[in-house]
Amino acid sequence: MTDLPANRVTLLTLGVAHLSRSRSFYAALGWEEAAALDGVVFYQMDGMAMALFGLEPLAADQGRPGAELGFGAVTLAQNFHDTDAVDAAYARALDAGATPLKDPEATFWGGYSGYYADPDGHVWELAHNPHWPLDEIGRTTIPVG
Amino acid sequence: MTDLPANRVTLLTLGVAHLSRSRSFYAALGWEEAAALDGVVFYQMDGMAMALFGLEPLAADQGRPGAELGFGAVTLAQNFHDTDAVDAAYARALDAGATPLKDPEATFWGGYSGYYADPDGHVWELAHNPHWPLDEIGRTTIPVG
Repeated sequence: MTDLPANRVTLLTLGVAHLSRSRSFYAALGWEEAAALDGVVFYQMDGMAMALFGLEPLAADQGRPGAELGFGAVTLAQNFHDTDAVDAAYARALDAGATPLKDPEATFWGGYSGYYADPDGHVWELAHNPHWPLDEIGRTTIPVG
Repeated sequence: MTDLPANRVTLLTLGVAHLSRSRSFYAALGWEEAAALDGVVFYQMDGMAMALFGLEPLAADQGRPGAELGFGAVTLAQNFHDTDAVDAAYARALDAGATPLKDPEATFWGGYSGYYADPDGHVWELAHNPHWPLDEIGRTTIPVG
């Protein structure tokens, strides 16, 4: 057994149909690549990584070559300090070619949020959540109690 | 515009068919809940959060009520300090009811990895990557250059 915390993700891998298209999309959103090799692109986040990887090799790597992988049941959210920043990020995503799913609007839980899909259908939420502290590099802490 | 880094995820939301089933599954893996309310469960990770949320309300929240959301095109990986820890975590996941996709084995890139699916089909990889530093709380840094 390990003494590493259970609550963690080391690497978030998004399966993509066209790696060059996806690299361009994330570059247009400002993502900076840390490494690229053998059909995989890695992005350093705070303490963890994101990768873009072909859908076919991803299915094979998952132990099910030929499987048709599905999209949408995972949402990746980026929170911002205010609603203007959400609007700006949403506009930037649409400029980069994202598919709008829901224009940013006030939510029932007292926040503000919009959704878009990346070129493959991976779903991103852009949100302002006044209830969750967000530090200067974007680290958040769930309020407890 | 914002000066927050582009390379980040604040909240990772997994759509689930049965919230109680999924809570039990992640509890069996050792995940500790930070908050639970209104059909959503939140887990604190290092600087970010994970949530479990019903598939139907997730689709509605994404701006497409009634949409059938798909699984598998996102892999969530947890890295460990050695292969024994990978084996132990994999065994624990199967004990908790995970569906095995690929038993842990040596990989072509010099690591060791296995895959399982959670009760809904969300795909987790358990890996040992000797090339990526992993600190005592599981934070990783992509080697550059």
